[in-house]
Amino acid sequence: MHVFDRSTAHASLSNEAIEVIRWEQFQGTDRLPFHGMWYSVFPGQSSPRDQHPELELSLVLAGVAEVEAADGTITRVPSGSGFLLAGQESHIVHNSSPDTPVVVFSAYWMPEGHPDNAGVENGQGADQ
Amino acid sequence: MHVFDRSTAHASLSNEAIEVIRWEQFQGTDRLPFHGMWYSVFPGQSSPRDQHPELELSLVLAGVAEVEAADGTITRVPSGSGFLLAGQESHIVHNSSPDTPVVVFSAYWMPEGHPDNAGVENGQGADQ
Repeated sequence: MHVFDRSTAHASLSNEAIEVIRWEQFQGTDRLPFHGMWYSVFPGQSSPRDQHPELELSLVLAGVAEVEAADGTITRVPSGSGFLLAGQESHIVHNSSPDTPVVVFSAYWMPEGHPDNAGVENGQGADQ
Repeated sequence: MHVFDRSTAHASLSNEAIEVIRWEQFQGTDRLPFHGMWYSVFPGQSSPRDQHPELELSLVLAGVAEVEAADGTITRVPSGSGFLLAGQESHIVHNSSPDTPVVVFSAYWMPEGHPDNAGVENGQGADQ
């Protein structure tokens, strides 16, 4: 068994708005059919607008993610629930809480048939 | 965007020890390169011993999962962290808390090269 311990993992990006912890740092993640990462959106902050060819499944681990689509629609996804973004679907994650970080686990993978879909071993992919 | 709302999903199994909510009930999950489910282990309870050919990645959404391996070793995995089980790796999830359910999201998929690995559309797979 491999354990992926968020408390001891190192962040690849951290600023006043978000923190990103990529799973490539863990042994065993090369056996997953997707890339993995955790990201946090701090209280009162928003992620940068993001858009990428990979599909992305997000599970909300803490807080309430307010997911803004390209047309400005905002969908609230509470802790325990998930959301799936299609490839090239633009998104921003807002956190309107004054005190609770939003913490998300994301799995992301190239769509079948995409020219870059040569496995998930190249360490590139969805970015917050 | 597809939202997978745990609060309105229906359980495929529920007894005094565990509850299992499979993702096949949601539109859009046929686009995932894995099957998905949530399961809960209620306070003071344990899941049945489980063993299956699929690899299984679990994210702990609430509580502390105490994962028992085949040799009896128990690994504590707190909320926010994850664990990956190899195919055929026997496991039990215990919850020693007197009052907090353990809630887990699991992604599971057949290993590459397995004769049954003809995609994830057949609705069969890892069982708690």
